[in-house]
Amino acid sequence: MSRPGNRTGPTMHDVAAAAGVSQATVSLVLNDASGTRFSEETRHRVQEAARQLGYRTNAHAKVLRDGVAGMIGFVGDFVATAPFAGKIIEGAQARAWEAGLLLLTVNTGGDKELEKSSLDMMLSYKVAGVVYAGMYHRQLEVPEALGEVPAVVLNSRDRSGRLPGIAPDEELGGYTATRRLLGAGHRRIAMINIGRPDDVALPAAAGRRAGYLRALAGAGIDADPRLQCDGGGEVPDGRAEMLRLMALDEPPTAVFCANDRTAWGAYQALESLGLRVPQDVSVIGFDNQETLAPNLRPGLTTLELPFVEMGRRAVELVLAGARSGAGRTELLACPLIERQSVAPPHPSPRSRRA
Amino acid sequence: MSRPGNRTGPTMHDVAAAAGVSQATVSLVLNDASGTRFSEETRHRVQEAARQLGYRTNAHAKVLRDGVAGMIGFVGDFVATAPFAGKIIEGAQARAWEAGLLLLTVNTGGDKELEKSSLDMMLSYKVAGVVYAGMYHRQLEVPEALGEVPAVVLNSRDRSGRLPGIAPDEELGGYTATRRLLGAGHRRIAMINIGRPDDVALPAAAGRRAGYLRALAGAGIDADPRLQCDGGGEVPDGRAEMLRLMALDEPPTAVFCANDRTAWGAYQALESLGLRVPQDVSVIGFDNQETLAPNLRPGLTTLELPFVEMGRRAVELVLAGARSGAGRTELLACPLIERQSVAPPHPSPRSRRA
Repeated sequence: MSRPGNRTGPTMHDVAAAAGVSQATVSLVLNDASGTRFSEETRHRVQEAARQLGYRTNAHAKVLRDGVAGMIGFVGDFVATAPFAGKIIEGAQARAWEAGLLLLTVNTGGDKELEKSSLDMMLSYKVAGVVYAGMYHRQLEVPEALGEVPAVVLNSRDRSGRLPGIAPDEELGGYTATRRLLGAGHRRIAMINIGRPDDVALPAAAGRRAGYLRALAGAGIDADPRLQCDGGGEVPDGRAEMLRLMALDEPPTAVFCANDRTAWGAYQALESLGLRVPQDVSVIGFDNQETLAPNLRPGLTTLELPFVEMGRRAVELVLAGARSGAGRTELLACPLIERQSVAPPHPSPRSRRA
Repeated sequence: MSRPGNRTGPTMHDVAAAAGVSQATVSLVLNDASGTRFSEETRHRVQEAARQLGYRTNAHAKVLRDGVAGMIGFVGDFVATAPFAGKIIEGAQARAWEAGLLLLTVNTGGDKELEKSSLDMMLSYKVAGVVYAGMYHRQLEVPEALGEVPAVVLNSRDRSGRLPGIAPDEELGGYTATRRLLGAGHRRIAMINIGRPDDVALPAAAGRRAGYLRALAGAGIDADPRLQCDGGGEVPDGRAEMLRLMALDEPPTAVFCANDRTAWGAYQALESLGLRVPQDVSVIGFDNQETLAPNLRPGLTTLELPFVEMGRRAVELVLAGARSGAGRTELLACPLIERQSVAPPHPSPRSRRA
């Protein structure tokens, strides 16, 4: 293990000498412990001497005294390509910083050894708490060490049900998307999912499907099993499932794709059939992936996963001292982002097919 | 400022009592300072007692002794949507972890107040060094405080020339892209840039253009100014410039787009003209944006920015004690990612236009 060596810089003694006060005075003034017992003039002199010498207080002494550091640990199982990882971290960091804390982050990419070692190290640095974030919404095993500090599971759920969590309201999202299509006048609405809705490890697939079914039922529509595809979450899945749907005797006039990549595949399939979005078939997505949804032609109407807000809220719970045992998962709503991919149904889309 | 309160847990005294040794022995064994002076049996007894009690060493005492923490600061001016921020951080984190260090990260989104305060806090935590990362390759003002520790500028250059840096070799990238099109037999090659090449704050635009011109010159081709567009880096820029290029009396048979979003716009423009990629016009991009390049139809041949490697290399320089004054910028090559968007020139693309 190679580390830069010990650094030498100005000491508290140097500051005391420059300011003409005792070392104890410097310590008290700079650590703001009982600063008010000194005159404004003395405090100014100490601060000025510290500034000119480039002296920095050592936060570690304060941590040894207080037992808790100005840092929150953030452990994510993200892989580098996850386009939203930055948003979750941005939200978490912004909220932490409002309380004067920094994030000590590790993205493990799912490596359990790295997770354990880095969590041990975070705890030895006396982090004020830990946010444990999942790359996608699912149930996961939470490391035991999280029981030692305030900890929150983010974008996932603790399988054991002990830790509190923050997750998107998938069911409400699926309901909102389908209501949007119903509201435009569609009755024959397909759904291409991002996995099997009975996969308990994938609440996103189950929840979005459940919301779709609830919206259809609320409109008095019998859900047609032939219009429900499991998909796989990638562009080619959307292409293949959309082609299959349009080959049905009674193809859908609208499709709810459970993520934006799937929706892009649906666009590609419709284009290859000579059909237009939204004139022939309406499409709605999920995720509001920023490199994708606004750049599709036409722009994709979709639901946004509230990542920034989720990151903020997780840190808020940590700051409030969230504890193991209070394992409630808080669900945040996914706002609808309106673009140009939804329109009233075309009288007979099949007549336009190439 | 709300923080979880002081935590109470097992103390070193508790471990000593459980193991039947002195507190000093516990300290020496657990901090591994002079562990070898004790028998294997004693060390095992202490470690076992600590494990059973759930005692954790306090890293801050060690930092006070050594003067440097097992953390590297990472300050990025990223905004949350930057799709590559995760990759740079992944590379930096992986290399830091190989040396047993964690990253203390802040993404400032360009907020100078946040940058200053968080950097002060990192330094008070005695980070072993700081990586200062730019969202895109440019010249930037580096905070003065970076002069106090080993520090490296990543994906940008220190305007003052003091700090060492790591950046992509933009010129070589532009050269490689253009050589690929020349190698396929193209002679009339356009370039849609991501900004003005004379913008000194944007080495990516200048470098990629310079590489394009060098490759043309090397093939004995006079660069045609009408084939060089400044663009703006977004999808609509690519659309507009590609339409303009195809309206020339002698349109290009191939286009080098200085990022993948621009290339997507070029695809859209060609499609609207009834032209096919690559049969009618070849397209090459830059960035290898993973949510985009493989999903275009056909898949986009492009250059990859070596973000993971850049992150690794920056931490490596910090670990080696990189110092202000040694302000060399190290350039890393951008590998060519071959997909399906480049083919030999069509004899007469204009004859296929709609």
